[in-house]
Amino acid sequence: MEPLSEQTRQVLKTVSTATISTLLFKRGLRNTCVHGVRRMSAAKSNMVGEAFTLRNIPNREDLDQVSVFQNPDHPQRKAYDNVPAGHVLMIDCRGDTRAASGGGILTTRLKMRDAAGLVSDGCLRDSEEIGRMEMPVYCAGPAAPLNLSRHHAVDINVPIGCGGVAVYPGDIVVGDGDGVVIIPRHLAAEIAAEAVEMEKFEHYVMLEIERGQPVIGTYPPSEESRARYQEWANKNK
Amino acid sequence: MEPLSEQTRQVLKTVSTATISTLLFKRGLRNTCVHGVRRMSAAKSNMVGEAFTLRNIPNREDLDQVSVFQNPDHPQRKAYDNVPAGHVLMIDCRGDTRAASGGGILTTRLKMRDAAGLVSDGCLRDSEEIGRMEMPVYCAGPAAPLNLSRHHAVDINVPIGCGGVAVYPGDIVVGDGDGVVIIPRHLAAEIAAEAVEMEKFEHYVMLEIERGQPVIGTYPPSEESRARYQEWANKNK
Amino acid sequence: MEPLSEQTRQVLKTVSTATISTLLFKRGLRNTCVHGVRRMSAAKSNMVGEAFTLRNIPNREDLDQVSVFQNPDHPQRKAYDNVPAGHVLMIDCRGDTRAASGGGILTTRLKMRDAAGLVSDGCLRDSEEIGRMEMPVYCAGPAAPLNLSRHHAVDINVPIGCGGVAVYPGDIVVGDGDGVVIIPRHLAAEIAAEAVEMEKFEHYVMLEIERGQPVIGTYPPSEESRARYQEWANKNK
Amino acid sequence: MEPLSEQTRQVLKTVSTATISTLLFKRGLRNTCVHGVRRMSAAKSNMVGEAFTLRNIPNREDLDQVSVFQNPDHPQRKAYDNVPAGHVLMIDCRGDTRAASGGGILTTRLKMRDAAGLVSDGCLRDSEEIGRMEMPVYCAGPAAPLNLSRHHAVDINVPIGCGGVAVYPGDIVVGDGDGVVIIPRHLAAEIAAEAVEMEKFEHYVMLEIERGQPVIGTYPPSEESRARYQEWANKNK
Amino acid sequence: MEPLSEQTRQVLKTVSTATISTLLFKRGLRNTCVHGVRRMSAAKSNMVGEAFTLRNIPNREDLDQVSVFQNPDHPQRKAYDNVPAGHVLMIDCRGDTRAASGGGILTTRLKMRDAAGLVSDGCLRDSEEIGRMEMPVYCAGPAAPLNLSRHHAVDINVPIGCGGVAVYPGDIVVGDGDGVVIIPRHLAAEIAAEAVEMEKFEHYVMLEIERGQPVIGTYPPSEESRARYQEWANKNK
Amino acid sequence: MEPLSEQTRQVLKTVSTATISTLLFKRGLRNTCVHGVRRMSAAKSNMVGEAFTLRNIPNREDLDQVSVFQNPDHPQRKAYDNVPAGHVLMIDCRGDTRAASGGGILTTRLKMRDAAGLVSDGCLRDSEEIGRMEMPVYCAGPAAPLNLSRHHAVDINVPIGCGGVAVYPGDIVVGDGDGVVIIPRHLAAEIAAEAVEMEKFEHYVMLEIERGQPVIGTYPPSEESRARYQEWANKNK
Repeated sequence: MEPLSEQTRQVLKTVSTATISTLLFKRGLRNTCVHGVRRMSAAKSNMVGEAFTLRNIPNREDLDQVSVFQNPDHPQRKAYDNVPAGHVLMIDCRGDTRAASGGGILTTRLKMRDAAGLVSDGCLRDSEEIGRMEMPVYCAGPAAPLNLSRHHAVDINVPIGCGGVAVYPGDIVVGDGDGVVIIPRHLAAEIAAEAVEMEKFEHYVMLEIERGQPVIGTYPPSEESRARYQEWANKNK
Repeated sequence: MEPLSEQTRQVLKTVSTATISTLLFKRGLRNTCVHGVRRMSAAKSNMVGEAFTLRNIPNREDLDQVSVFQNPDHPQRKAYDNVPAGHVLMIDCRGDTRAASGGGILTTRLKMRDAAGLVSDGCLRDSEEIGRMEMPVYCAGPAAPLNLSRHHAVDINVPIGCGGVAVYPGDIVVGDGDGVVIIPRHLAAEIAAEAVEMEKFEHYVMLEIERGQPVIGTYPPSEESRARYQEWANKNK
Repeated sequence: MEPLSEQTRQVLKTVSTATISTLLFKRGLRNTCVHGVRRMSAAKSNMVGEAFTLRNIPNREDLDQVSVFQNPDHPQRKAYDNVPAGHVLMIDCRGDTRAASGGGILTTRLKMRDAAGLVSDGCLRDSEEIGRMEMPVYCAGPAAPLNLSRHHAVDINVPIGCGGVAVYPGDIVVGDGDGVVIIPRHLAAEIAAEAVEMEKFEHYVMLEIERGQPVIGTYPPSEESRARYQEWANKNK
Repeated sequence: MEPLSEQTRQVLKTVSTATISTLLFKRGLRNTCVHGVRRMSAAKSNMVGEAFTLRNIPNREDLDQVSVFQNPDHPQRKAYDNVPAGHVLMIDCRGDTRAASGGGILTTRLKMRDAAGLVSDGCLRDSEEIGRMEMPVYCAGPAAPLNLSRHHAVDINVPIGCGGVAVYPGDIVVGDGDGVVIIPRHLAAEIAAEAVEMEKFEHYVMLEIERGQPVIGTYPPSEESRARYQEWANKNK
Repeated sequence: MEPLSEQTRQVLKTVSTATISTLLFKRGLRNTCVHGVRRMSAAKSNMVGEAFTLRNIPNREDLDQVSVFQNPDHPQRKAYDNVPAGHVLMIDCRGDTRAASGGGILTTRLKMRDAAGLVSDGCLRDSEEIGRMEMPVYCAGPAAPLNLSRHHAVDINVPIGCGGVAVYPGDIVVGDGDGVVIIPRHLAAEIAAEAVEMEKFEHYVMLEIERGQPVIGTYPPSEESRARYQEWANKNK
Repeated sequence: MEPLSEQTRQVLKTVSTATISTLLFKRGLRNTCVHGVRRMSAAKSNMVGEAFTLRNIPNREDLDQVSVFQNPDHPQRKAYDNVPAGHVLMIDCRGDTRAASGGGILTTRLKMRDAAGLVSDGCLRDSEEIGRMEMPVYCAGPAAPLNLSRHHAVDINVPIGCGGVAVYPGDIVVGDGDGVVIIPRHLAAEIAAEAVEMEKFEHYVMLEIERGQPVIGTYPPSEESRARYQEWANKNK
């Protein structure tokens, strides 16, 4: 699998998850947005990166003692230490919100590795600290309890579910204020290209609505309205 | 049904949903507040308006393709284009939070029509854009997916359920920082009148509490306390 | 039971709920954080205080009329009027979010009594007013409906459940941006002492991570890393 | 409080929870049926008895060790040993279904004490054994885990919530195939009397429906239909 | 819309909802089975009929008094009195299980009208009586409370949601032990035809599995396996 | 890992999941029972076997077409074809109940392979057919939709979560009327031995309760009561 092209990455930084999910919907993909997460950090721009995954199962009291972190191969610690630059760490917590799946120190480690962001369908601790970071971080909310009180990390970079959506390693993850969308890897380039077109059109539609045009006939456009758009688009390249 | 009087509308802009729901409670109406929604926009003042409703049922993959919006009678588009000035568009999404029931363009259309606001027990996309609008907008949160991925709009201006509460077209909808309350149309004027009285009294109670008085004997007032209030009220008309 | 020592109280104001819950986890206490609540007020520092409890059961329409507040022994009003200074009022709403368990006036009364804070696993009304208060207030969110529409207050200062956690009167309650943790009374002093140590170490770890060290070998520390920390700790007393 | 009269008890054994809840509804009591429980035992007739209650809060790992049962005052054991004859043990598990609130031995103890039945909004273990008992037993379903893994028994015979409904000690509990309804103690005799009348009428309605009459005009009856019923009722005393 | 052909009806009585939902899945319809309902009655054979719908919204205490049934046009009563022979009454309760949407008398009325069955995503009262009926009845479970305590019937024979699935009047409803599936009207005949073929093949597969064949190569069949089936099918017409 | 000894297997067939979970509780394992499943088949005796696991993630519409089953390595089909004799197939459906994770044909294949049983925290189709099988089968209930409409099988025999509990390949799975408990492999022999002792004692306790003894002093036994038990136990070896 060749890396995500820099061009596609840059384009995806400028388009919304709403636009992307509509384009995926048109291809028959109706379940592409991570459910139940919101942005916790102070990110100003879109999160874009390849998915690098961590899978948790429910904890077991005898296995999940604090001493497990002494093991240099503990999957949670290993995941945070090995996320490649430009990737998003996607954590499968089975939607269980009763414990943290990371905190300030681990998230800072991601930043130091130039990761593109973090998404967990569980919670995070040190939420105020993370709230001041600029790296995009999405989760189900703040929670203080140690990950081991609910989660047992088992696998790195296998397909996971996150917020009810399938995530395959290498899928393209995009996040903005509306949440997080997963683009199957092979569709990323074409979605990016179409998205730019679609957002340009929607920008025009907004101008029309703001000058008092009705939705019907404008969005989607009637033939006449489409002609007017083409004219506008030619002038505003 | 005669329109909501301007006087009642102005009064309801100054009283809280907490006060209104207490007054409805006293009349035996215990289930009047839309459950599960919060304010998404930057509204500074109360939302007040008559309910104009849109009803969704679950989508069906063959019927709910993007092409349906070509139909000038599509109920969702039609609803947004026809909300009368001063009305609140109330959308029944059956509490399903996995898709958007509107976005920036449609919400802007409401603003252009001088609608009083928008309430959906589903989600909205373009949440950051809506977050900067001053028109009151309430929903269950942000979500990127297209409405068609979960919802099929069927009816305009029929009685609906929204957030577990019955909403009849023409009911009076009031929203503030605590959420949204539905006042049966015929009670609006009398609730407004009583609410002003009640809030005046509560303002006095707050002054009493702030100078160290206990809750008991003050709220509700003992006879002695009520006498003191009357005195105060006479001085502070 | 002797009062919480001022020293322990001051120390707990400086440590995080994440740290505290990890230390409780090490003692086998895995379920110590109140689930489903978030901070509603503008508190700048930790909430620390002994638990003073109020228990609600579901309302019954004939018993829970507005007139009940005329009773000077009504448990809800009595609870707010009797929380001792330095205590946290903990309210058991069985996690039912469809009504308020308090509002602006009652919360102000707590402030006047120098209470340390308020935690409810139900909701609160007058949320914008509470949002401007500096006293720490945690709940499941805003809701306008009167408490009587769902809750019937029955007991003061008995053991309760709150957000799925056992709370015994006199337990130590600590709150920060991640939420609220309950420390069994007899463990408070030793937890406080250990917490300071642990946070000092975590501060060092963060410095290490920020200069590019990996998580593995640093957090928890290898022997070598621990030695470096001791050196640093000796210099930074 | 005088005991439930034998006459009322016998009458309530012959009427349905559906009828009773409708009669309570007419008095403004809309929330009277325990939500989320079903009959686990092989009871053939209605359960009728006064409520005797047991309250649980969430467990805490250090307090809830198996050794607690050595304490002769442990509230759970004490409750089962002290339910008076003719009473129903009502257990408040806060609707948590992840542990048992009793099992075969404890339920047999109730039977030996001539209790009228058992209702828990949590689960029970030894469900197959209980399934063969004739004493009425209602709960949220079978679950093997020990009560201590989720529940800590704290109080006996205080007001509780059970399945979302308020239960006061001494309230009258009636159960049949549709579930469990709680009658406020002071209403029991009058509800019983009305229920017999109502069921007699409904028996007549069923005969009418079975001979092809429509619902409208029959249930509720038109004037003509009511006259026919009176005639029938006079003949069928 | 012409009536469902007797032939299609008879064929659908012999095929399973599992088969039907697989055939709909192949056409891109993935959300066709009513979620959260189970069979309450003693039906021995498949339920098959056209959908006739009833829509409820949340109740309002002042509107939903017992006296409303005096109105001969009350939608709930009218629905039960007007379901055409061979149709299934589908009731939208928004999945609210806290009240009954019908009971023994109303269900008997359906039987007298030769209705094909009843499906509600809410509950039913008189569950033991319904449990002995042979007409197919599906719902979310038993519940005693009167419909008016949660539901307000508003519309007859409009599109509804039921158990998370869209139901249009006239759609074909099929029920068996696995639950209820909705077939869009225009697909009924072709689904019926294919279903017979598919079940014949599955019968053969079961014989193969029972003689020890693996799933792989049998289900779906390899070319060789398909040839063997054709041979068998020719012999077993 | 050596196979489960025949002796331990036979012993576990005679003891209850209630007893086993209590013994695990005493070792600090409080979360050992699969939540949300019930027995679907007509099994008369305990299910006992080693866990063989199948993991699902959410489906994706383009990947999960019916044609995938043509692949002889499809993990779902492969899992059913490769469960070793005496093992229990444990399926992780993330608790999603909107689709089937197997049906009559696949379950029959397990029976042909002498599997010990099947546990899924999702649903199964062909529930009536499975209801007549004697092999133990546990799941969240019946559902007709094809597995591909919600699930994508990814892994065989990795650690999974099932009903909120960790399951490692080779763990010992025991099921009875109360549900399913997971015994960590290395504890199976000692749990089995203790369980026999404990059940013998509980049998004695039941005899005592049935002759009118109170719970307190009997269960757990007072010293005197324990002495009587020892006497009885010596006589009843």
